[in-house]
Amino acid sequence: MRIANWAKTIKNNYLFQTVAEKTKKFSEKNPEAKIINMGIGDVSLPISEFVVKSCLEASKEMGEISSFRGYSPNGGYDFLKEKIQEEYSQRDISLDLDEIFISDGAKSDMSNILDIFSGQNICSIPDPVYPVYLDTSIMKGLKVEFLDANEENDFLPLPDFSVKRDIIYICSPNNPTGAAYSREQMKKWVDYANEYESIILYDAAYESFIQDSNLCKSIFEIEGSKSCAIEFKSFSKSAGFTGMRCGYSIVPKELKRENISLNSIWSRRHSTKFNGVPYIIQRAAEASLSLQGKHECEQNIKYYMKNYEKISETLDSLSIKFFGGNSPYVWMKCPNGMKSWEFFDYLLKNLKIVGTPGSGFGKNGENYFRLSCFGLHENVSEACERLRDLL
Amino acid sequence: MRIANWAKTIKNNYLFQTVAEKTKKFSEKNPEAKIINMGIGDVSLPISEFVVKSCLEASKEMGEISSFRGYSPNGGYDFLKEKIQEEYSQRDISLDLDEIFISDGAKSDMSNILDIFSGQNICSIPDPVYPVYLDTSIMKGLKVEFLDANEENDFLPLPDFSVKRDIIYICSPNNPTGAAYSREQMKKWVDYANEYESIILYDAAYESFIQDSNLCKSIFEIEGSKSCAIEFKSFSKSAGFTGMRCGYSIVPKELKRENISLNSIWSRRHSTKFNGVPYIIQRAAEASLSLQGKHECEQNIKYYMKNYEKISETLDSLSIKFFGGNSPYVWMKCPNGMKSWEFFDYLLKNLKIVGTPGSGFGKNGENYFRLSCFGLHENVSEACERLRDLL
Repeated sequence: MRIANWAKTIKNNYLFQTVAEKTKKFSEKNPEAKIINMGIGDVSLPISEFVVKSCLEASKEMGEISSFRGYSPNGGYDFLKEKIQEEYSQRDISLDLDEIFISDGAKSDMSNILDIFSGQNICSIPDPVYPVYLDTSIMKGLKVEFLDANEENDFLPLPDFSVKRDIIYICSPNNPTGAAYSREQMKKWVDYANEYESIILYDAAYESFIQDSNLCKSIFEIEGSKSCAIEFKSFSKSAGFTGMRCGYSIVPKELKRENISLNSIWSRRHSTKFNGVPYIIQRAAEASLSLQGKHECEQNIKYYMKNYEKISETLDSLSIKFFGGNSPYVWMKCPNGMKSWEFFDYLLKNLKIVGTPGSGFGKNGENYFRLSCFGLHENVSEACERLRDLL
Repeated sequence: MRIANWAKTIKNNYLFQTVAEKTKKFSEKNPEAKIINMGIGDVSLPISEFVVKSCLEASKEMGEISSFRGYSPNGGYDFLKEKIQEEYSQRDISLDLDEIFISDGAKSDMSNILDIFSGQNICSIPDPVYPVYLDTSIMKGLKVEFLDANEENDFLPLPDFSVKRDIIYICSPNNPTGAAYSREQMKKWVDYANEYESIILYDAAYESFIQDSNLCKSIFEIEGSKSCAIEFKSFSKSAGFTGMRCGYSIVPKELKRENISLNSIWSRRHSTKFNGVPYIIQRAAEASLSLQGKHECEQNIKYYMKNYEKISETLDSLSIKFFGGNSPYVWMKCPNGMKSWEFFDYLLKNLKIVGTPGSGFGKNGENYFRLSCFGLHENVSEACERLRDLL
């Protein structure tokens, strides 16, 4: 009996777990401390009224013999997929229902998608980025090449046509830097992928925070993308579904490699290793895409973006360099040349503020720090006051 | 770019998908036919009252800022894990909370668990059995050896100490045959696994249907099992959660291979590639394990087992051989030497009854047929009448 190779080599701690453990330890030692958590990207506003209403209705349906629903269809209910189809069609992107796969979240999808590829591929991962891409690529045994994102390239690396990469992870707006590609920039990536027959795994989990209309909200806005890209979306941030669990992937039917349809094999994988999203949750997701639901969700996004403004004003006034504006994160330079974990400990100890060390997202994240804008206004305001007082 | 090898070799259709497609086609051609579905193992009774109540409460909590919950803790909420711990302790099995991992269902777990093992292992899969084990093993690239289950061994194959197997899938009560191991038989498997340092993947999804008290309900009832087994459980059948999606895996902390704790690497896998089960669903699962919830769920199981009695009486009266009694399935021999798919077509065409061809579960399933007991009484009664009329 042999265990998987990755288990012998992978680093022992998952970034957010380490942050949580350090915070817990501090909190136990300092039970009186009022810690403000700006670490993990969890939302703080409740599920909107209209969406809760649909949860209540769906729960009741599950309790009546006439309306009870068992296994969900593979890939999700049409009522939800039709709403998603409509969203895309409003941006002139035409999708068939069976190009949409409902799942329990983009994190699962972005990992599970590797099941359909060979472990012999070379994978390109931006640095810094959401650590799941790297961890899951290591678990798959892929050869990983990092793509440097830094202040010199505005944290938006472009393809290097002199090297071949097979699987290309792109997160736009990027977590943690908040940098988002323009349509012109994405066109370069699509051209690259089509030239090399690569596949772009496009993580659009933060798409709803994009403020600048020149930026790309879906890779399928780009000509030629349907022959080289898979898109991943989440309700976690757009509708506050972190504790509700719903997302989806779009795999165009024209996407083929080695003469095999990726849509078919993803469907095969989905139906073999997954059994669908709870009916109640699919109804909730549907409600979040209704007129009323969208209106309420947009209010929440505006609420969080006010936090962004508040934090950015504070950092400006302290002359601390930072980046963002199209995502729910502030990507700041650690003051006084501090290292990321050093600044984490410093903030926790002195200001009782928890953030996420940039170095946890990759080597280029060293000396940077991520603050989440998902807090309540009063907490973010207090955090800003504490920052002003100390720094 | 290379796609995964399995995509080039795996059979194109998933058993239940083929059944569904054939049924759909027939139904479109014969819109007036009243089809009775005894195929896929989906429940038909609604979620019990007490469980629905907890869904309603949890949904409301998600809509209030004071009670809203974001990301679930890795591995699930303690409130649910404590209830599961209590269930096990009532059978004198002691578990730590971090040996329990809440998931979206046993199907996902039984597939995903392979992520922690090397692809170089040899895997033992009973034939016939739930097709997911084979499909997921092919996706992993494992060498698969089948273990013949047939009338000669009462569909309960025992270990062959002359050959070494690394990963051993056991489903007890078995889907589709309904055969369940006694404690004495399971002890042999545990001894085998400890001798060869194999890992038993024990699928106990149908455990709550066991009527015979001599049969093994959890592998952890068996001495020595904690050093060689992982158990998978589901709320799908015990609480009718097929459309609610909740299950769990138990990975004992003393389970080690190559000096590495399987509990730790499963936890690492879980936190990297999965983001938890919806809060509402975890509350619902908790409610199903309360006194009131358990009482209501037991009533449902009794209801389904009445279907078993009804079907078995009918087959008896027709002198058709069948097996079962500790699971929600009747495993019948196809009459007149018919092949499984032949009998499927025959039943659908002549009686408008959908069942599952035994051969879809493995070569030893040929000439057998699975009828599900999850229907409503009136439908099962009518199906039985139709059977009596024709056969």
